[in-house]
Amino acid sequence: MLDVRQRNVKNKKEIINSSKYIILNPKEYLGKWKSLFNNSNPIYIEIGMGKGDFILENAKRYPDINFIGIEKYDSIIALAIKKIEVLDIPNLKLIRMDALEINEVFSHEIDKVFLNFSDPWPKPRHAKRRLTSEVFLEKYDNIFKKDKIIEMKTDNRNLFEYSLVSFTNYGYIISEISLDLHHSDYPDNIMTEYERKFSLKNNCIYFVKVVKLQ
Amino acid sequence: MLDVRQRNVKNKKEIINSSKYIILNPKEYLGKWKSLFNNSNPIYIEIGMGKGDFILENAKRYPDINFIGIEKYDSIIALAIKKIEVLDIPNLKLIRMDALEINEVFSHEIDKVFLNFSDPWPKPRHAKRRLTSEVFLEKYDNIFKKDKIIEMKTDNRNLFEYSLVSFTNYGYIISEISLDLHHSDYPDNIMTEYERKFSLKNNCIYFVKVVKLQ
Repeated sequence: MLDVRQRNVKNKKEIINSSKYIILNPKEYLGKWKSLFNNSNPIYIEIGMGKGDFILENAKRYPDINFIGIEKYDSIIALAIKKIEVLDIPNLKLIRMDALEINEVFSHEIDKVFLNFSDPWPKPRHAKRRLTSEVFLEKYDNIFKKDKIIEMKTDNRNLFEYSLVSFTNYGYIISEISLDLHHSDYPDNIMTEYERKFSLKNNCIYFVKVVKLQ
Repeated sequence: MLDVRQRNVKNKKEIINSSKYIILNPKEYLGKWKSLFNNSNPIYIEIGMGKGDFILENAKRYPDINFIGIEKYDSIIALAIKKIEVLDIPNLKLIRMDALEINEVFSHEIDKVFLNFSDPWPKPRHAKRRLTSEVFLEKYDNIFKKDKIIEMKTDNRNLFEYSLVSFTNYGYIISEISLDLHHSDYPDNIMTEYERKFSLKNNCIYFVKVVKLQ
Protein backbone atom coordinates (compact mmCIF):
# COMPACT_ATOMS: atom_id res chain seq x y z
CA MET A 1 0.00 0.00 0.00
CA LEU A 2 1.47 3.27 -1.15
CA ASP A 3 1.45 6.64 0.44
CA VAL A 4 0.70 5.35 3.90
CA ARG A 5 3.07 7.39 5.91
CA GLN A 6 5.37 4.91 7.49
CA ARG A 7 5.76 6.78 10.68
CA ASN A 8 6.88 4.55 13.46
CA VAL A 9 4.05 3.18 15.57
CA LYS A 10 4.92 2.81 19.23
CA ASN A 11 4.66 -0.72 20.62
CA LYS A 12 3.91 -2.04 17.16
CA LYS A 13 5.30 -5.48 17.97
CA GLU A 14 3.14 -5.73 21.08
CA ILE A 15 0.07 -4.55 19.17
CA ILE A 16 0.63 -7.19 16.51
CA ASN A 17 1.47 -10.03 18.89
CA SER A 18 -1.55 -9.45 21.11
CA SER A 19 -4.22 -8.87 18.40
CA LYS A 20 -7.07 -11.33 18.15
CA TYR A 21 -7.10 -10.76 14.37
CA ILE A 22 -3.48 -11.60 13.66
CA ILE A 23 -2.41 -15.08 12.65
CA LEU A 24 1.15 -15.24 13.95
CA ASN A 25 1.99 -18.63 12.51
CA PRO A 26 0.25 -18.57 9.11
CA LYS A 27 2.39 -21.30 7.58
CA GLU A 28 0.81 -23.80 9.96
CA TYR A 29 -2.51 -23.26 8.20
CA LEU A 30 -1.24 -24.11 4.72
CA GLY A 31 -4.15 -25.90 3.05
CA LYS A 32 -6.23 -25.68 6.24
CA TRP A 33 -7.65 -22.16 6.37
CA LYS A 34 -11.15 -23.56 6.15
CA SER A 35 -10.63 -25.17 9.54
CA LEU A 36 -9.42 -21.90 11.04
CA PHE A 37 -12.63 -20.15 10.02
CA ASN A 38 -14.58 -23.28 10.91
CA ASN A 39 -16.74 -23.05 7.78
CA SER A 40 -16.56 -23.67 4.03
CA ASN A 41 -17.24 -20.12 2.91
CA PRO A 42 -15.14 -18.61 0.12
CA ILE A 43 -11.88 -16.98 1.16
CA TYR A 44 -10.81 -13.64 -0.33
CA ILE A 45 -7.42 -12.13 0.37
CA GLU A 46 -6.06 -8.63 -0.03
CA ILE A 47 -2.33 -8.42 -0.61
CA GLY A 48 -1.05 -5.11 0.71
CA MET A 49 -4.05 -4.12 2.78
CA GLY A 50 -2.50 -0.97 4.21
CA LYS A 51 -4.52 0.44 7.08
CA GLY A 52 -7.30 -2.01 6.30
CA ASP A 53 -10.32 0.13 5.41
CA PHE A 54 -11.10 -1.91 2.30
CA ILE A 55 -10.91 -5.38 3.84
CA LEU A 56 -12.69 -4.29 7.02
CA GLU A 57 -15.63 -2.85 5.11
CA ASN A 58 -15.79 -5.93 2.90
CA ALA A 59 -15.80 -8.25 5.91
CA LYS A 60 -18.62 -6.28 7.51
CA ARG A 61 -20.65 -6.14 4.32
CA TYR A 62 -20.20 -9.80 3.33
CA PRO A 63 -20.36 -11.97 6.49
CA ASP A 64 -20.61 -15.18 4.41
CA ILE A 65 -17.19 -14.64 2.91
CA ASN A 66 -13.94 -15.00 4.85
CA PHE A 67 -11.38 -12.23 4.39
CA ILE A 68 -7.67 -12.25 5.05
CA GLY A 69 -5.65 -9.06 4.89
CA ILE A 70 -1.92 -9.27 4.25
CA GLU A 71 0.51 -6.46 4.96
CA LYS A 72 4.28 -6.41 5.00
CA TYR A 73 5.01 -3.48 7.29
CA ASP A 74 4.69 -3.68 11.07
CA SER A 75 3.79 -0.04 11.54
CA ILE A 76 1.05 -0.12 8.94
CA ILE A 77 -0.59 -3.34 10.10
CA ALA A 78 -0.42 -2.01 13.67
CA LEU A 79 -2.50 0.98 12.57
CA ALA A 80 -5.03 -1.37 10.98
CA ILE A 81 -5.22 -3.44 14.16
CA LYS A 82 -5.81 -0.37 16.32
CA LYS A 83 -8.87 0.41 14.20
CA ILE A 84 -10.21 -3.13 13.96
CA GLU A 85 -9.37 -4.53 17.40
CA VAL A 86 -12.36 -2.89 19.11
CA LEU A 87 -14.73 -4.62 16.68
CA ASP A 88 -15.86 -8.21 16.60
CA ILE A 89 -15.63 -9.58 13.06
CA PRO A 90 -15.29 -13.36 12.95
CA ASN A 91 -14.78 -13.55 9.17
CA LEU A 92 -11.64 -11.38 9.15
CA LYS A 93 -8.03 -12.33 9.83
CA LEU A 94 -4.78 -10.49 9.27
CA ILE A 95 -1.28 -11.66 8.43
CA ARG A 96 1.94 -9.70 8.60
CA MET A 97 4.11 -11.12 5.87
CA ASP A 98 5.83 -10.48 2.56
CA ALA A 99 3.77 -11.50 -0.48
CA LEU A 100 6.76 -13.47 -1.74
CA GLU A 101 6.01 -16.09 0.93
CA ILE A 102 2.42 -16.58 -0.20
CA ASN A 103 2.88 -20.14 -1.43
CA GLU A 104 4.08 -21.19 2.03
CA VAL A 105 0.83 -19.96 3.53
CA PHE A 106 -1.96 -20.82 1.05
CA SER A 107 -2.48 -23.86 -1.12
CA HIS A 108 -5.48 -24.19 -3.44
CA GLU A 109 -7.96 -22.56 -1.06
CA ILE A 110 -8.38 -18.94 -2.16
CA ASP A 111 -11.32 -17.70 -4.24
CA LYS A 112 -10.30 -14.14 -5.00
CA VAL A 113 -7.28 -11.86 -4.69
CA PHE A 114 -7.55 -8.09 -4.23
CA LEU A 115 -4.65 -5.83 -5.17
CA ASN A 116 -5.32 -2.23 -4.21
CA PHE A 117 -2.91 0.60 -4.94
CA SER A 118 0.07 -1.72 -4.97
CA ASP A 119 3.60 -0.40 -5.08
CA PRO A 120 4.22 0.44 -8.79
CA TRP A 121 7.95 -0.26 -8.65
CA PRO A 122 8.43 2.19 -11.52
CA LYS A 123 11.94 1.25 -12.57
CA PRO A 124 12.03 -1.41 -15.32
CA ARG A 125 14.68 -3.38 -13.44
CA HIS A 126 12.22 -3.74 -10.53
CA ALA A 127 9.32 -4.93 -12.71
CA LYS A 128 9.45 -8.42 -11.23
CA ARG A 129 8.59 -7.01 -7.83
CA ARG A 130 5.23 -5.69 -9.03
CA LEU A 131 2.40 -7.80 -7.60
CA THR A 132 1.08 -8.35 -11.14
CA SER A 133 4.35 -9.57 -12.64
CA GLU A 134 4.64 -13.10 -13.97
CA VAL A 135 6.62 -13.98 -10.84
CA PHE A 136 3.55 -13.31 -8.71
CA LEU A 137 0.95 -14.60 -11.21
CA GLU A 138 2.76 -17.95 -11.05
CA LYS A 139 2.57 -17.90 -7.27
CA TYR A 140 -1.14 -17.05 -7.32
CA ASP A 141 -1.81 -20.07 -9.56
CA ASN A 142 -1.15 -22.31 -6.61
CA ILE A 143 -3.18 -20.47 -4.02
CA PHE A 144 -6.47 -20.43 -5.97
CA LYS A 145 -8.99 -23.15 -5.27
CA LYS A 146 -10.49 -23.28 -8.76
CA ASP A 147 -11.21 -20.29 -11.03
CA LYS A 148 -8.61 -17.55 -10.66
CA ILE A 149 -10.09 -14.13 -9.98
CA ILE A 150 -8.06 -10.98 -9.34
CA GLU A 151 -9.52 -7.53 -8.72
CA MET A 152 -7.13 -4.65 -8.97
CA LYS A 153 -7.44 -0.93 -8.30
CA THR A 154 -4.74 1.65 -8.80
CA ASP A 155 -4.23 5.29 -9.65
CA ASN A 156 -0.88 4.52 -11.29
CA ARG A 157 -1.30 4.51 -15.06
CA ASN A 158 1.99 2.79 -15.82
CA LEU A 159 1.33 0.02 -13.32
CA PHE A 160 -2.15 -0.48 -14.73
CA GLU A 161 -0.96 -0.63 -18.34
CA TYR A 162 1.79 -3.06 -17.36
CA SER A 163 -0.68 -5.21 -15.45
CA LEU A 164 -3.16 -5.48 -18.34
CA VAL A 165 -0.38 -6.74 -20.59
CA SER A 166 0.90 -9.09 -17.89
CA PHE A 167 -2.54 -10.51 -17.05
CA THR A 168 -3.59 -11.21 -20.63
CA ASN A 169 -0.22 -12.67 -21.58
CA TYR A 170 -0.61 -15.03 -18.63
CA GLY A 171 -4.01 -16.27 -19.84
CA TYR A 172 -6.33 -14.04 -17.84
CA ILE A 173 -9.27 -12.45 -19.63
CA ILE A 174 -10.73 -9.09 -18.67
CA SER A 175 -14.14 -9.56 -17.12
CA GLU A 176 -14.78 -5.97 -16.00
CA ILE A 177 -12.79 -2.79 -16.40
CA SER A 178 -13.13 0.88 -15.62
CA LEU A 179 -10.66 3.57 -16.60
CA ASP A 180 -12.36 6.04 -14.29
CA LEU A 181 -13.92 4.08 -11.46
CA HIS A 182 -15.35 7.04 -9.60
CA HIS A 183 -17.27 8.11 -12.70
CA SER A 184 -18.54 4.65 -13.61
CA ASP A 185 -21.52 2.53 -12.67
CA TYR A 186 -19.91 0.71 -9.76
CA PRO A 187 -22.13 1.80 -6.88
CA ASP A 188 -20.70 -0.92 -4.61
CA ASN A 189 -17.11 0.25 -4.77
CA ILE A 190 -15.50 0.02 -1.35
CA MET A 191 -12.76 2.61 -1.01
CA THR A 192 -9.34 2.19 0.54
CA GLU A 193 -8.09 4.98 2.79
CA TYR A 194 -5.61 5.93 0.08
CA GLU A 195 -8.33 5.99 -2.56
CA ARG A 196 -10.54 8.26 -0.48
CA LYS A 197 -7.71 10.71 -0.05
CA PHE A 198 -6.57 10.43 -3.64
CA SER A 199 -10.01 10.79 -5.19
CA LEU A 200 -10.32 14.26 -3.75
CA LYS A 201 -7.70 15.27 -6.30
CA ASN A 202 -10.15 14.14 -8.97
CA ASN A 203 -7.69 11.98 -10.87
CA CYS A 204 -8.62 8.64 -12.43
CA ILE A 205 -8.86 5.46 -10.41
CA TYR A 206 -8.37 2.41 -12.63
CA PHE A 207 -10.16 -0.85 -11.87
CA VAL A 208 -10.01 -4.28 -13.49
CA LYS A 209 -11.37 -7.72 -12.69
CA VAL A 210 -9.54 -10.49 -14.51
CA VAL A 211 -10.45 -14.15 -14.60
CA LYS A 212 -8.67 -17.31 -15.62
CA LEU A 213 -11.05 -20.22 -15.73
CA GLN A 214 -9.97 -23.61 -14.49
CA MET B 1 -14.87 7.80 -38.29
CA LEU B 2 -16.69 10.06 -35.91
CA ASP B 3 -17.07 13.78 -35.85
CA VAL B 4 -16.23 14.21 -39.49
CA ARG B 5 -18.86 16.66 -40.51
CA GLN B 6 -20.92 14.84 -43.05
CA ARG B 7 -21.58 17.88 -45.13
CA ASN B 8 -22.49 16.94 -48.64
CA VAL B 9 -19.58 16.96 -51.05
CA LYS B 10 -20.49 18.08 -54.53
CA ASN B 11 -19.85 15.55 -57.29
CA LYS B 12 -18.89 12.96 -54.71
CA LYS B 13 -19.90 10.07 -56.96
CA GLU B 14 -17.80 11.43 -59.81
CA ILE B 15 -14.85 12.01 -57.50
CA ILE B 16 -15.05 8.43 -56.25
CA ASN B 17 -15.61 6.84 -59.63
CA SER B 18 -12.71 8.62 -61.28
CA SER B 19 -10.08 8.27 -58.53
CA LYS B 20 -6.96 6.27 -59.29
CA TYR B 21 -6.92 5.16 -55.64
CA ILE B 22 -10.41 3.71 -55.45
CA ILE B 23 -11.05 0.04 -56.08
CA LEU B 24 -14.60 0.07 -57.42
CA ASN B 25 -15.01 -3.71 -57.60
CA PRO B 26 -13.22 -4.91 -54.46
CA LYS B 27 -15.00 -8.28 -54.32
CA GLU B 28 -13.20 -9.29 -57.50
CA TYR B 29 -9.93 -9.19 -55.58
CA LEU B 30 -11.02 -11.60 -52.84
CA GLY B 31 -7.89 -13.62 -52.01
CA LYS B 32 -5.92 -11.82 -54.73
CA TRP B 33 -4.92 -8.45 -53.29
CA LYS B 34 -1.28 -9.40 -53.59
CA SER B 35 -1.68 -9.45 -57.36
CA LEU B 36 -3.28 -6.00 -57.34
CA PHE B 37 -0.27 -4.52 -55.59
CA ASN B 38 2.00 -6.71 -57.67
CA ASN B 39 4.19 -7.63 -54.69
CA SER B 40 4.16 -9.81 -51.58
CA ASN B 41 4.46 -7.03 -49.02
CA PRO B 42 2.26 -7.12 -45.91
CA ILE B 43 -1.19 -5.57 -46.25
CA TYR B 44 -2.58 -3.33 -43.50
CA ILE B 45 -6.14 -2.05 -43.59
CA GLU B 46 -7.87 0.77 -41.76
CA ILE B 47 -11.59 0.27 -41.24
CA GLY B 48 -13.28 3.67 -41.04
CA MET B 49 -10.44 5.77 -42.41
CA GLY B 50 -12.36 9.05 -42.37
CA LYS B 51 -10.58 11.78 -44.28
CA GLY B 52 -7.53 9.54 -44.57
CA ASP B 53 -4.74 11.43 -42.78
CA PHE B 54 -3.68 8.34 -40.83
CA ILE B 55 -3.50 5.87 -43.70
CA LEU B 56 -1.93 8.40 -46.06
CA GLU B 57 0.87 9.22 -43.63
CA ASN B 58 1.42 5.50 -42.96
CA ALA B 59 1.62 4.75 -46.67
CA LYS B 60 4.17 7.50 -47.19
CA ARG B 61 6.23 6.47 -44.20
CA TYR B 62 6.22 2.72 -44.89
CA PRO B 63 6.56 2.15 -48.66
CA ASP B 64 7.22 -1.58 -48.16
CA ILE B 65 3.78 -2.14 -46.67
CA ASN B 66 0.56 -1.98 -48.66
CA PHE B 67 -2.29 0.02 -47.13
CA ILE B 68 -5.99 -0.13 -47.84
CA GLY B 69 -8.35 2.45 -46.37
CA ILE B 70 -12.01 1.56 -46.00
CA GLU B 71 -14.75 4.12 -45.50
CA LYS B 72 -18.52 3.77 -45.60
CA TYR B 73 -19.61 7.29 -46.45
CA ASP B 74 -19.36 8.77 -49.95
CA SER B 75 -18.88 12.34 -48.78
CA ILE B 76 -16.09 11.44 -46.39
CA ILE B 77 -14.12 9.25 -48.77
CA ALA B 78 -14.52 11.96 -51.43
CA LEU B 79 -12.76 14.40 -49.09
CA ALA B 80 -9.95 11.88 -48.59
CA ILE B 81 -9.59 11.42 -52.35
CA LYS B 82 -9.40 15.17 -52.96
CA LYS B 83 -6.42 15.27 -50.62
CA ILE B 84 -4.67 12.15 -51.89
CA GLU B 85 -5.41 12.30 -55.63
CA VAL B 86 -2.66 14.82 -56.38
CA LEU B 87 -0.07 12.51 -54.84
CA ASP B 88 1.45 9.37 -56.28
CA ILE B 89 1.46 6.60 -53.70
CA PRO B 90 1.55 3.13 -55.23
CA ASN B 91 1.14 1.28 -51.92
CA LEU B 92 -2.21 2.86 -51.05
CA LYS B 93 -5.72 1.90 -52.17
CA LEU B 94 -9.15 2.96 -50.97
CA ILE B 95 -12.48 1.15 -50.82
CA ARG B 96 -15.90 2.62 -50.24
CA MET B 97 -17.85 -0.07 -48.43
CA ASP B 98 -19.55 -1.12 -45.21
CA ALA B 99 -17.31 -3.11 -42.85
CA LEU B 100 -20.03 -5.75 -42.65
CA GLU B 101 -19.04 -6.87 -46.15
CA ILE B 102 -15.41 -7.39 -45.27
CA ASN B 103 -15.43 -11.17 -45.71
CA GLU B 104 -16.57 -10.76 -49.30
CA VAL B 105 -13.51 -8.63 -50.03
CA PHE B 106 -10.61 -10.16 -48.09
CA SER B 107 -9.69 -13.76 -47.42
CA HIS B 108 -6.61 -14.72 -45.37
CA GLU B 109 -4.40 -11.96 -46.76
CA ILE B 110 -4.37 -9.14 -44.22
CA ASP B 111 -1.54 -8.62 -41.71
CA LYS B 112 -2.92 -5.84 -39.51
CA VAL B 113 -6.20 -4.02 -38.90
CA PHE B 114 -6.36 -0.41 -37.69
CA LEU B 115 -9.48 0.87 -35.95
CA ASN B 116 -9.24 4.61 -35.26
CA PHE B 117 -11.94 6.55 -33.44
CA SER B 118 -14.64 4.12 -34.50
CA ASP B 119 -18.29 4.87 -33.91
CA PRO B 120 -18.91 3.96 -30.23
CA TRP B 121 -22.55 2.96 -30.75
CA PRO B 122 -23.22 3.88 -27.11
CA LYS B 123 -26.57 2.17 -26.67
CA PRO B 124 -26.29 -1.39 -25.35
CA ARG B 125 -28.75 -2.64 -27.96
CA HIS B 126 -26.36 -1.44 -30.67
CA ALA B 127 -23.29 -3.12 -29.14
CA LYS B 128 -23.05 -5.62 -31.98
CA ARG B 129 -22.44 -2.79 -34.42
CA ARG B 130 -19.22 -1.76 -32.68
CA LEU B 131 -16.22 -2.71 -34.79
CA THR B 132 -14.75 -4.58 -31.80
CA SER B 133 -17.85 -6.69 -31.06
CA GLU B 134 -17.68 -10.46 -31.38
CA VAL B 135 -19.62 -10.12 -34.65
CA PHE B 136 -16.69 -8.25 -36.19
CA LEU B 137 -13.92 -10.19 -34.43
CA GLU B 138 -15.34 -13.33 -36.06
CA LYS B 139 -15.25 -11.64 -39.45
CA TYR B 140 -11.65 -10.49 -38.93
CA ASP B 141 -10.60 -14.08 -38.19
CA ASN B 142 -11.06 -14.89 -41.85
CA ILE B 143 -9.31 -11.90 -43.32
CA PHE B 144 -6.01 -12.33 -41.45
CA LYS B 145 -3.21 -14.19 -43.18
CA LYS B 146 -1.61 -15.64 -40.04
CA ASP B 147 -1.20 -13.85 -36.68
CA LYS B 148 -4.08 -11.54 -35.93
CA ILE B 149 -3.02 -8.01 -35.02
CA ILE B 150 -5.42 -5.15 -34.31
CA GLU B 151 -4.36 -1.63 -33.34
CA MET B 152 -7.06 0.59 -31.95
CA LYS B 153 -7.20 4.24 -30.93
CA THR B 154 -10.14 6.04 -29.45
CA ASP B 155 -11.05 8.86 -27.13
CA ASN B 156 -14.24 7.09 -26.07
CA ARG B 157 -13.74 5.51 -22.66
CA ASN B 158 -16.79 3.26 -22.80
CA LEU B 159 -15.90 1.92 -26.24
CA PHE B 160 -12.34 1.28 -25.09
CA GLU B 161 -13.42 -0.55 -21.93
CA TYR B 162 -15.91 -2.61 -23.94
CA SER B 163 -13.25 -3.43 -26.53
CA LEU B 164 -10.69 -4.63 -23.97
CA VAL B 165 -13.26 -7.06 -22.54
CA SER B 166 -14.33 -8.14 -26.03
CA PHE B 167 -10.77 -8.66 -27.31
CA THR B 168 -9.57 -10.71 -24.35
CA ASN B 169 -12.72 -12.82 -24.21
CA TYR B 170 -12.13 -13.62 -27.87
CA GLY B 171 -8.59 -14.86 -27.22
CA TYR B 172 -6.59 -11.74 -28.00
CA ILE B 173 -3.80 -10.76 -25.63
CA ILE B 174 -2.75 -7.18 -25.01
CA SER B 175 0.64 -6.54 -26.53
CA GLU B 176 0.85 -2.76 -25.98
CA ILE B 177 -1.48 -0.33 -24.30
CA SER B 178 -1.57 3.34 -23.41
CA LEU B 179 -4.29 5.05 -21.44
CA ASP B 180 -2.93 8.46 -22.42
CA LEU B 181 -1.23 8.09 -25.76
CA HIS B 182 -0.19 11.71 -26.13
CA HIS B 183 1.67 11.55 -22.84
CA SER B 184 3.33 8.20 -23.45
CA ASP B 185 6.51 7.02 -25.12
CA TYR B 186 5.05 6.47 -28.58
CA PRO B 187 7.07 8.95 -30.66
CA ASP B 188 5.88 7.32 -33.89
CA ASN B 189 2.18 7.89 -33.34
CA ILE B 190 0.54 8.98 -36.57
CA MET B 191 -2.47 11.14 -35.82
CA THR B 192 -5.84 11.05 -37.52
CA GLU B 193 -7.47 14.38 -38.38
CA TYR B 194 -9.96 13.79 -35.58
CA GLU B 195 -7.19 13.01 -33.12
CA ARG B 196 -5.31 16.18 -33.96
CA LYS B 197 -8.40 18.25 -33.36
CA PHE B 198 -9.42 16.33 -30.28
CA SER B 199 -6.01 16.36 -28.63
CA LEU B 200 -6.15 20.12 -28.41
CA LYS B 201 -8.79 19.63 -25.76
CA ASN B 202 -6.16 17.75 -23.76
CA ASN B 203 -8.33 14.71 -23.06
CA CYS B 204 -7.01 11.16 -23.07
CA ILE B 205 -6.45 9.20 -26.25
CA TYR B 206 -6.54 5.47 -25.58
CA PHE B 207 -4.41 3.07 -27.61
CA VAL B 208 -4.13 -0.71 -27.63
CA LYS B 209 -2.42 -3.29 -29.78
CA VAL B 210 -3.88 -6.76 -29.40
CA VAL B 211 -2.57 -9.99 -30.85
CA LYS B 212 -3.96 -13.46 -31.34
CA LEU B 213 -1.25 -15.85 -32.42
CA GLN B 214 -1.98 -18.48 -35.03
